[in-house]
Amino acid sequence: MAPPQQVEDEAFVTLATSDTYALGSLVWGQSLRRVGTTRKLVVMITPGVSHGIRQQLGSVFDLLEVVDVLDSRDTINLGLLERPDLGVTFTKFHVWRLTQFKKCVFMDSDTMVLQNIDELFEREEFSAAPDPGWPDCFNSGVFVLQPSLQTYQNLLAFAMTVGSFDGGDQGLLNLYFKDWAYTDIQKHLPFIYNVVSQAFYSYLPALKQFGANIKVVHFIGPVKPWMHKYNTATGEVIPEPGTGHHGTFLQQWWNIFMELVQPKMDPT
Amino acid sequence: MAPPQQVEDEAFVTLATSDTYALGSLVWGQSLRRVGTTRKLVVMITPGVSHGIRQQLGSVFDLLEVVDVLDSRDTINLGLLERPDLGVTFTKFHVWRLTQFKKCVFMDSDTMVLQNIDELFEREEFSAAPDPGWPDCFNSGVFVLQPSLQTYQNLLAFAMTVGSFDGGDQGLLNLYFKDWAYTDIQKHLPFIYNVVSQAFYSYLPALKQFGANIKVVHFIGPVKPWMHKYNTATGEVIPEPGTGHHGTFLQQWWNIFMELVQPKMDPT
Ligand SMILES: O=c1ccn([C@@H]2O[C@H](COP(=O)(O)OP(=O)(O)O)[C@@H](O)[C@H]2O)c(=O)[nH]1
Ligand SMILES: O=c1ccn([C@@H]2O[C@H](COP(=O)(O)OP(=O)(O)O)[C@@H](O)[C@H]2O)c(=O)[nH]1
Ligand SMILES: [Mn+2]
Ligand SMILES: [Mn+2]
Repeated sequence: MAPPQQVEDEAFVTLATSDTYALGSLVWGQSLRRVGTTRKLVVMITPGVSHGIRQQLGSVFDLLEVVDVLDSRDTINLGLLERPDLGVTFTKFHVWRLTQFKKCVFMDSDTMVLQNIDELFEREEFSAAPDPGWPDCFNSGVFVLQPSLQTYQNLLAFAMTVGSFDGGDQGLLNLYFKDWAYTDIQKHLPFIYNVVSQAFYSYLPALKQFGANIKVVHFIGPVKPWMHKYNTATGEVIPEPGTGHHGTFLQQWWNIFMELVQPKMDPT
Repeated sequence: MAPPQQVEDEAFVTLATSDTYALGSLVWGQSLRRVGTTRKLVVMITPGVSHGIRQQLGSVFDLLEVVDVLDSRDTINLGLLERPDLGVTFTKFHVWRLTQFKKCVFMDSDTMVLQNIDELFEREEFSAAPDPGWPDCFNSGVFVLQPSLQTYQNLLAFAMTVGSFDGGDQGLLNLYFKDWAYTDIQKHLPFIYNVVSQAFYSYLPALKQFGANIKVVHFIGPVKPWMHKYNTATGEVIPEPGTGHHGTFLQQWWNIFMELVQPKMDPT
C-alpha cells in the first residue's frame, strides 16, 4: 500500500523559547511522527534555544522558524494564575505569520499525541477545545488557525489596547475570539483533542468511560513532564506528587523521550 | 408598572429526598422568588421528607409533588466519584412526568440563583452547561427539558439496559443525550447558568473576568452549604476547608437561609 499523500500546505506547529521546552517539542514531534501524520511539522524557536538542541530539532521537524520573544509583562494576572512564566506565551502569535501554510494546528510543547489527529485540518479558524477551569473559555494549548499577517497585526494591536485577562495567550485569545462559546459547535473541538491534566482527577468516571478515545494529552501547570524523576534502572517515571499528571500518560511521554530523544542529546 | 405576567405552563423544578436537602430547596426557591421569576416553582419530594418541612416548602413553592425514590445502586462507579449517596439522584427523572407543564428547568437543590434566569425557557430540551471535570459532558445540576411520559419511560428502560457511567443521573443523562457535545450550540447553556464550585479555584483570572455575569452558583461535592458552620453572633459563615466553596457565595446562601428560611423552621 502506498503511504498516504503528504500535504505540503498544512502544518502542525509548536513553540519552544528554551532548551527545556524544546524537550517537550521533541517528544511532541515524535508523537506526531509515530501516528503517521501527513502534515508538515514546524517548531518556532526564539534566539535563546541552543545550537545543540536546534540540531536535534532539525532532525525531527520539517521547519525551524526563529521568532522574537513577545511578552505580556502582566505580572498581576499571571500572579493570580501563579504562573509568572506565562507572559512569554504571547510568542505563540507568530504562528499567524506562517503564511506559506493555508492552515495550521498550533499545539503546546507540553502536549503529546496518542492517535492520528490529521482530521483537525477539516476544522476552520478558530477551533479549540473547552478549558475545564471555565468551560466557556477554550484552552489555547491546541487550536486550528489560518495564517494571515493581518490577523497577526490585529492580535498585536489587541494585545496593546485590550490585553489578556490572565496575562497569557489564553486570556487574550479568548477575548479576541470571544464568540467561540456561543456561535458554532464545529469550532468546539471535542475534549479528547486536548485533555488537560486536571481531567485525570476531577471526574474519574468520565475518564474511565471516555479515556480510550483520548487523542491528545496536555500536561498543563507549572510542573512539566520533563521535570518528573525517572528511574533509568527500571525504566519507570516517578511522578512528583500533586501535579495531577496521570501515571500512564506520563510513562508514555518518558518512553518516547528515552527511546527517541534522549539518545540523540548532545552529551556536552 | 404592572408586574410581569405569570407563566402557568412552565416551571422551575427541584428535588429533595430528605429534610437536609430540603433546606437547599428552600434557599433555592427563595433565591428564585427574589429575582422575580414569572414561572411556577415546584419541589419534588419523597416520602422521607417530614411534615414540618413540607409545610414550609408549601409556603414557598407553587407545587409539592410526592414521588418515589429511584436508585441506581451502582456502588462501584459511585465509589469512583467518592459519592455513595448519589444513586438516589435518579429520582430526578420524575421531572419528565410533570406533563402539566410544557417546559421545565430542573435545578439541583444545592444551586442558588443570583440573577433572573427566565430566559432559560427560550431553550429546548436538552440544554445544559458543560461540566468542568470533563467538558464534553454536561453538568446535570441545571437543565432544560420537556415533560413527556414517553421520555420518562425511555429513561427508565435506558437505566435498566445501559445504566450510568458514574452511578448518578449525570452519567446516565450524558449517555442518553449523547449528541449534546457535538450537535447544537444552542443546547450549550453558557457556564454562567451553572458555575460549579471548582471554577472558584481552577481558573481564577476567568472568575475575576466573568464573575459579575454569574447567574447560578452550584455547590457541588459532598459538603453542602448547610453543612458549613455559621456564627450567629457575627452573621458570618465559617467555610469548612477544602470544599472549594467560594466565601462570598456561601455567605449569600446563608444570608437567604437566616433571613427567609431559618426563622420559619419548626422549633421541634
Ligand atoms: O517559558 C516558556 C513558556 C511557554 N512556552 C510555550 O508556550 C506553551 C504554553 O505554556 P505552558 O504549556 O507552560 O502553559 P500551560 O499549558 O501550563 O498553561 C508551552 O507549551 C510552550 O510551547 C515556551 O516555549 N517557553
Ligand atoms: O440524598 C440526596 C442526594 C441528592 N438529592 C437531589 O439530587 C441533587 C443532586 O445531588 P447533589 O447536588 O448532591 O450532587 P452534586 O451536584 O454534588 O454532584 C441534589 O441537589 C438534590 O436536589 C437529594 O434530594 N437527596
Ligand atoms: Mn501547555
Ligand atoms: Mn448539585
